[in-house]
Amino acid sequence: MKFIVRAGKPEDCRDIERMIMELAVYENMPDQVKISHKELERDGFGSNPYYQCLIAEVPEEQKSKDGHTKVGYALFFYTYSTWKGRVVFIEDLYVMPDYRGKGIGKALMATVAKVGKEKQCMRLQLSVLDWNRPSLEFYLAKGAEDLTAKEGWHFIRFSGEALDSLAQEAP
Amino acid sequence: MKFIVRAGKPEDCRDIERMIMELAVYENMPDQVKISHKELERDGFGSNPYYQCLIAEVPEEQKSKDGHTKVGYALFFYTYSTWKGRVVFIEDLYVMPDYRGKGIGKALMATVAKVGKEKQCMRLQLSVLDWNRPSLEFYLAKGAEDLTAKEGWHFIRFSGEALDSLAQEAP
Repeated sequence: MKFIVRAGKPEDCRDIERMIMELAVYENMPDQVKISHKELERDGFGSNPYYQCLIAEVPEEQKSKDGHTKVGYALFFYTYSTWKGRVVFIEDLYVMPDYRGKGIGKALMATVAKVGKEKQCMRLQLSVLDWNRPSLEFYLAKGAEDLTAKEGWHFIRFSGEALDSLAQEAP
Repeated sequence: MKFIVRAGKPEDCRDIERMIMELAVYENMPDQVKISHKELERDGFGSNPYYQCLIAEVPEEQKSKDGHTKVGYALFFYTYSTWKGRVVFIEDLYVMPDYRGKGIGKALMATVAKVGKEKQCMRLQLSVLDWNRPSLEFYLAKGAEDLTAKEGWHFIRFSGEALDSLAQEAP
């Protein structure tokens, strides 16, 4: 199957929104999605973007039964290690079900790695759910380390009232 | 004890470097630090900064025995949730040992929360080692969720040869 991987553009945001929702449906949590193409346009394409995006696109003759040619995306951003410097972090990696097993996911991921290395990133990071064994094993087979299993790192999140209360304690 | 929390400036980078190293010594991993004030200046103070920083500073009369008035820092950046939008992430939060227990750490953290809310962030996130019970319990007492314990999120990292190999697979 032919496909290209290219940088996302503002006009891709409706397709990104669609695929974010498809991914959330797959994860059984579609009601968690509070974002639309409007926020995606605002946050990904200003002078200081909050994220970057790659789009996987197939030719017209291979479009989906619903008429889509944008069939996968990787959404990523830069974070920072105070030991090693720049880090590229993949937040979402998605390929539509009918287009899986054709190297599109790997191409998206590898392109994020390449872009990150061009920006002098020393690390590529992501997070994965422990029940998602196929993904976890894919990453480990590629040489990644599971820092939660190995070193005991836990994700902590403040949101809603907890975040409001914390902000109100600022001097 | 009097102190102020203020935005970091390029001329703070030698003190940030010093405190990054103090934190790494505390964690028994000083040889892991591959960063200096030069990278910190380049990466935190350009037109598209990779991180932001807050400094806690005490008056001259309360300087440390080594003459330091910059006694703590919080280093943070923005990440992105495809469900909720903007997120503020605290990478490092450090207060010099002689200045702990005086509300400086809480003030740094609360100020990051306030800055994040001003940027319309819906979440504040950070990571913590599972053996660091005092910190973990402090966050949970403040209303944070442990997403690794609750949902099973693991941190995955590619670096060195694994990252090089991945980047070479880009189409």
